[in-house]
This record gives sequence, C-alpha cells and structure tokens, in this order.
Amino acid sequence: MSFVVKMNGSQNNDIHGNFISGNGVHHVSRWSVKPSEMSKKTLNPIRAIVDGMKLTPNPEKPMIALSIGDPTVFGNLPTDDTVLQAMKEAIDSHKYNGYAPSVGYQKSREVVADFYSCPEAPLDGKDVILTSGCSQAIELAISVLCNPGDNILVPRPGFSLYKTLAVSMGIQVKHYNLLPEKSWEIDLQHLESLIDDKTACLIVNNPSNPCGSVFSREHLHKILSVASRNCIPILADEIYGDMVFPGCDFQPLAPLSSDVPILSCGGLAKRWLVPGWRMGWILIHDRNDIFGTAIREGLVKLSQRILGPCTVVQGALESILNDTPPEFYQGTISFLKSNSEICYSELSTVPGLNPVMPSGAMYIMVGIEMEHFPDFQNDVEFTERLVTEQSVFCLPATAFEYPNFFRIVVTVPEEMMIEACIRIREFCARHYRPRSQDSHELDQ
Amino acid sequence: MSFVVKMNGSQNNDIHGNFISGNGVHHVSRWSVKPSEMSKKTLNPIRAIVDGMKLTPNPEKPMIALSIGDPTVFGNLPTDDTVLQAMKEAIDSHKYNGYAPSVGYQKSREVVADFYSCPEAPLDGKDVILTSGCSQAIELAISVLCNPGDNILVPRPGFSLYKTLAVSMGIQVKHYNLLPEKSWEIDLQHLESLIDDKTACLIVNNPSNPCGSVFSREHLHKILSVASRNCIPILADEIYGDMVFPGCDFQPLAPLSSDVPILSCGGLAKRWLVPGWRMGWILIHDRNDIFGTAIREGLVKLSQRILGPCTVVQGALESILNDTPPEFYQGTISFLKSNSEICYSELSTVPGLNPVMPSGAMYIMVGIEMEHFPDFQNDVEFTERLVTEQSVFCLPATAFEYPNFFRIVVTVPEEMMIEACIRIREFCARHYRPRSQDSHELDQ
Ligand SMILES: Cc1ncc(COP(=O)(O)O)c(C=O)c1O
Ligand SMILES: Cc1ncc(COP(=O)(O)O)c(C=O)c1O
Repeated sequence: MSFVVKMNGSQNNDIHGNFISGNGVHHVSRWSVKPSEMSKKTLNPIRAIVDGMKLTPNPEKPMIALSIGDPTVFGNLPTDDTVLQAMKEAIDSHKYNGYAPSVGYQKSREVVADFYSCPEAPLDGKDVILTSGCSQAIELAISVLCNPGDNILVPRPGFSLYKTLAVSMGIQVKHYNLLPEKSWEIDLQHLESLIDDKTACLIVNNPSNPCGSVFSREHLHKILSVASRNCIPILADEIYGDMVFPGCDFQPLAPLSSDVPILSCGGLAKRWLVPGWRMGWILIHDRNDIFGTAIREGLVKLSQRILGPCTVVQGALESILNDTPPEFYQGTISFLKSNSEICYSELSTVPGLNPVMPSGAMYIMVGIEMEHFPDFQNDVEFTERLVTEQSVFCLPATAFEYPNFFRIVVTVPEEMMIEACIRIREFCARHYRPRSQDSHELDQ
Repeated sequence: MSFVVKMNGSQNNDIHGNFISGNGVHHVSRWSVKPSEMSKKTLNPIRAIVDGMKLTPNPEKPMIALSIGDPTVFGNLPTDDTVLQAMKEAIDSHKYNGYAPSVGYQKSREVVADFYSCPEAPLDGKDVILTSGCSQAIELAISVLCNPGDNILVPRPGFSLYKTLAVSMGIQVKHYNLLPEKSWEIDLQHLESLIDDKTACLIVNNPSNPCGSVFSREHLHKILSVASRNCIPILADEIYGDMVFPGCDFQPLAPLSSDVPILSCGGLAKRWLVPGWRMGWILIHDRNDIFGTAIREGLVKLSQRILGPCTVVQGALESILNDTPPEFYQGTISFLKSNSEICYSELSTVPGLNPVMPSGAMYIMVGIEMEHFPDFQNDVEFTERLVTEQSVFCLPATAFEYPNFFRIVVTVPEEMMIEACIRIREFCARHYRPRSQDSHELDQ
C-alpha cells in the first residue's frame, strides 16, 4: 500500500491525501483549514500600524485619545433628540420589523432623494440605494464599477478603507497626491498622469478625512474636467458633506457636472452623530445616462447579498432628515470650528510642528519637521513616544499613506483639546533640536 | 495621424482609445461604464424566476401571497413587547450611538455566547461575531473558508443565498440531495460522493428552508461523521434553530462533535420575528483547535469591511435574549404547527399533490405529480397559473433547485391559509387528469 499526498496548489485545501488500496482510491484526510486569500488580503492599515505600536501611557497623566474618528465617545457631542425620538416612533409604529427591499424602503429612498435633490442634480427614490453605513456604500460602489486587474485612483493622504476594499478584491490602487500647501487640493497633473486604460474609478473624498479640507467650487470643476476628459466615473465620498465651518461652503460634486456619472456615498454617521447605527446611502447621479440601467441593476444585485440596513433606522429617516433643527447642525459645526482653532493656534506656535487649518469634517493634520526631532525615525515613533511620555494618542499619518504627519480628531471636549495641546508642546519642546544646534551637539 | 483603439480584454474597461499625435500619445476617451463581472455573477434565482413569471391575479379574488419568507407581513405574528421595549431602552440609554468594534460590542457577544453555550459546546464572547443579519454571517463564513476554485456542498432543495454568494466569488457549488421520502434527510452517500480535494465547506441548514424539516440527533451524527472522515468544516445555518414543533427536538449541530470545526450562523430574524433589524451572528465552534486563530482573525478582518450590525440592536440584545418570555416562543411555534397541520391535511387529500409535513421552521414543501397536470410544463407554470386563476402565489421550488414542488409559507393568518388551500384544491381539481383518462383524451 503506497501513501501519496496529493498536492493541488490551492492554498486553502491541502486537506486530502489519497492512498491507493487494493480496490481503488480512498481519501486519507487530515484537518487543515486555512483562511481564504481574500480574508488575508483584507488589510486595515490603521489596525496594522496601531497594533504594532507600543502604547503604554504615562501613568502620571490620564490618557487623551485624539485618534478615534467617533464623535460620540466623550459624550460631549450627543445626537439631537429628534433623531432619538424618530427611532422610538419607528419602533412604536410596528411598521419596520419586516424585511425591506434590499435597496431600502421606497419611502425611505425618496426621503433621502428629496433631502439631497437640487435643480442641477435632481434625485428620485430610484436613484438612492440604502446601505449598511457609508462603508458598505463604498464597498458596493467599488464592487459594481471595478473588476480584478482594474485600478482606482484614491487620495493620499486618504481614508484607508478604499485601499482595504480594493486590494481585497484584486483591484490595484493608485494614489494621487493632495497638496498641504494648497489646503490639500488635488495635484491634478499627478492625478491625470495616473490614469490608464485600466482605470475604473476616481475616488474623491470631500470634505476630507484625514485632512479636514473642503474643496472650492473651482477646484471641483477642475477635478470633473479630468474625469470627463478621460471618461472616468467618480465615487464621491461625501460622508462629511455639510460639515463645514461658517464662511466656507460645501459644494456637492454632482450638481457641477452633467456628463460625469457619479456615485455619491453618504450616511447618518457623522453629521447626525450616530455612526453605530450603520445607515448609509449611494446617490446615483447619471444625467448623461452613462451608468444606464446596467450599473443600477448591478447595485441592486449586490445589495441582495446582505439585504440592506436596519429597517428601524430606515423608518426613522424621514423624521431624522426633515425634522432635525438647524441649530443642531450649527451647534456641532461651531464646536468643531472652535476646537480646530484652539488646536491650530496652539500647535502653530510649536517649533517643529506645522498644523494645516481645516475648513470642515473633524480632523486636523499636523506636519512634523522630522529633521528637528532626531529622537524619532518617523511619525509612528513620534506618536508612540507621545503616548509613553504624555499619554496623548494621535494617529500617525502613515496610516493614511502620508508619513511625517499626524492626525488629530477635534471632537474631544475643549478642556481635553487644550490639555492635549499643552502636552504636545511640552513633548516637542523636549525633543526639538534646532538644526544648527544639532551639529553643535555632534561636536561635543 | 493614426487612430488606434486599444483593446485590453477587460470587460469593464474599453473606455480608452489612444491616438498618436506629433509629440506623444494622448487618450481619446469615450464613456463606457459597465457593471463588474462580480455584480453580474451575483444572481438571485428567486428574483430571476419570479421576475420572469406573469403574475396577474384573478381580479375576482383577493391575492394571497404564500411566497414571502417574512413572518411579519400580515401582522398576525408580531414580535414580543419585550423586544421592542429593549430597543427603546437601548435608545434612551444614549450608550449605543457610537461605533462598536466591527465584530460587535464585547458585552453583546457575551450575551449571545451565554445564550447558546452548553456544556458540550461551551461558548465565550470571543467565539461570537455579530453580523448584519444571518445573510452576512453566511457571507463572512463562506468568504473566510473558501477560495475561488474551491467548491462547497449545499442542500438541494435549499436556500438560494448559498449559491448566489458562492458563484459571485468564483466558488463552485455542488448540490447534495435531500430525500423527501425520508423527511428530507440528507442522502449521505450522495453527499460523500461529491467531496473532492477542492471541497472547502459543507453547508447544513437545519431546520430547513424550504423543507421545514428538522434533523434527528442520529442523522446529525451521521452528517458529522462524513465531515469528520473527510476533514471538511461545516457552516451550520441554524437561523430557524428552536423553531420546531412540540414533540420534536431541535438539536444544534456543534455539541454533537468535538472534532469538526463549525461556524454556526443565526440571528434574530425568525425566532424573534424581526427580520428587518439585520442582526445575525456566527458562533465559532472549534474545540479541536482546527480553525485556530487564523480563521478567527480572518473573520475579524472581513468584519472590518462594513463594521458590523446596528449598535442599537446590539445594545438591546441582552434583554431580547434574556427577558423574552417563553410564552412568546411557544405562541409562535404552536401557531406555525397548527397552520402547517391545516395546510398539510387539506392538501394531502388533493389528488396530484404530495405535501410533506414539516416539523419546524415556517414552510411546507408540496410535491406536484406533473404527469397528472398536463396543462403545465413544470412547477413554474403551475404556480404562475395558480396566480392567474386563484390569486394564490406560492414559490415554485425550481427557485430552490428542486423542480416539481412548490413551497408554502405557513405564517399567514389561519383564515387565509384555509382559503388558500380551498383555492389550491379547486385549481388542482380543474387541471388534474388521471393517467388513464390522459390516454383517453389523446384518443378523442
Ligand atoms: C471618509 C470616510 N468615508 C466613509 C466612512 C465610513 O462611514 P460609516 O461609518 O458610515 O461606514 C468614514 C468613517 O470614518 C470616513 O471617514
Ligand atoms: C435558511 C436561511 N438562512 C438565512 C436566512 C437569512 O436570514 P437574515 O434575514 O437574518 O439575513 C434565511 C432567510 O430567509 C433563511 O431562510
């Protein structure tokens, strides 16, 4: 009797050996269950980087986490009562317990359409797909537009999910640069130079995570020209839409173009301060009929895999969108602006740091003049030591593919923001080396 | 100047032509945005079949839909007040608005673990992954276990989502037979004959949609033997777990085996009668440490794509699972049993029909002796005409890869069930041809 282990090349499946006995082939099996390639390729760079950091806070100082993009964690930014009331009414109505269509209740889709419709980019219930958070909106949009082997254009620095999803699907990611010296506008030449005949989608995130930047109408027009000239559809991640500081204007992308087909992704997470509720949407803008019915049908099919977001939240949408008082939105924004200004003005006088003042969203990016901080090799070490010494945690911007910066979340209570800035200043003062002094020290 | 349209073989991307001008290559683009292969391969057979049917009810008779696997549509099976109250308390607590970990709050995972833990198959918070409905639980389980080119074993007749998901991921589906004459037990020989060295997972659905069958402990042991002998992990779809009629016993699969690694998928949809809430879970059973940490980590990574189910429902889980009174479950079950008995006893005396009495879930399968219904080619035509003539809609079991049967949902109010049976009887009486008479007619 000979024993043969059959190799079959599959990474998941070397679970069967065969042996040949007198009267035929039998399986001799041993257990070997391995995670799929896809799951292994689903990499979250934030987790990879943060899990690799030694984050031991200074026991003498209470921890201040400026790292988490969740505006609810400190309790200082509660959602509006209207929003909670809408949920309770949806529950009491007993109408929202059954299955909804996988793209959402028609009524709820219409509510979202009406909320975002404008004369230059009219929307209708059929143009809205409700999803499980903006994350799933992005997943469906990439899934419907791209095949393995295609590439997508994503911002650098940028939100990491785009890459996580694309890479797991075998889609190549090409990063286009944002320019900090131009308030994080897109380097349009660089963007256009990346386009090739495998480019299936351009992702534009405005307002931006991690930059807090908000594009002007002129800049958006230029982005649309690139897309139009090269016939590239756009995924507009507008989850921070309307979260812009007074004096600045949020311009949704779609109304500015009548030819570029745009999937605009959004949701309740940020503006309504309920990220846990997992309510997102895709707005299909296709005035030139380029997506046509095929892309719409593709989105419907993909939505049938997990059957849409929680029906209770869908039922509450009408009141959430239509009845939340303007003061609620204004309150959030003025808080974010005030905290951003505190943070910016504090850190802009710290030698070695270069914060970039945001215009919206809930983040500030801060440049680190690494040459003045010889104690640290990079932003990861810098932010790691900031925890060890000062118990302040900011995400190193390497997590956004942008070394030598770190990102501060400005949703924390004001006193915490101030205290954090004081500690960052202290930390920098301790480690800063002026360039001339550098050489001096070397002489000693 | 020559014009060259570059063909690149990609189905999604023939959007760029190139032309060569004096000083280099320029793109000449035209719009052509096509849905991805994956979205095109995401096929829902129920939709495909139902959308292809001419469903024009008889205007003289009000429509009775026995097709929809949603127990809430007729209002006769409301969820328990405890369940609704738990949601309102979760909202009032203000604790469940932020992001949860992508696999769910630790506390909510523990609650599910405690609810399903038993001495033979102990569970702990870390063994639970919360998902957006049982559908996403199944999606994650297949995604983590299978690579493109692998195959999975699924029941025939069976719930269509398994195939929809697998095919979209490039995973081959092999159907194993269920035997109606043996209360829909698995044809174990057939099952085992399908296994090869590319078999990555066996899906067992118990209690069954569409059969309403419930496997005995002995049968489950035999299924486990096949899996154990061939070293195939199991995805146990137990979404109808505990929904079995008095006198019958639901036996979860995992406690019966200490070597076969099992991902048990479930959720709130059916037993708690809130399918729209999209709360599901994977219970990881791995007492022999075959999944190990790798599969767990794979599941965590995959969960990070869309970040888990609605936090409000997660917050309500503790009270939903622990405080819902036993009378609620019993009430649902005795209603389903009574309706099943009505339907079964009515239809078992209809010439040409062979209903199979269920023991659980919320479905009855009814065999059609097609040779006695020469007016119809198949179950699709049969059920289509049942709508035209009698305004009764049942899903043709072709939707479950099982021709010549149809499926009845038994969650409708009793009067409707009775009326539907009367109409089905009338319909069959009208179209039934005894075999001898058949040939007679041919003679005329
Ligand atoms: C730019 C951006 N897009 C999308 C998302 C995901 O939003 P959601 O929580 O609705 O999935 C986030 C979350 O932080 C984000 O920053
Ligand atoms: C056998 C089976 N599994 C899974 C599901 C999906 O459940 P959920 O609504 O929780 O996604 C269903 C729904 O009908 C089902 O019948």
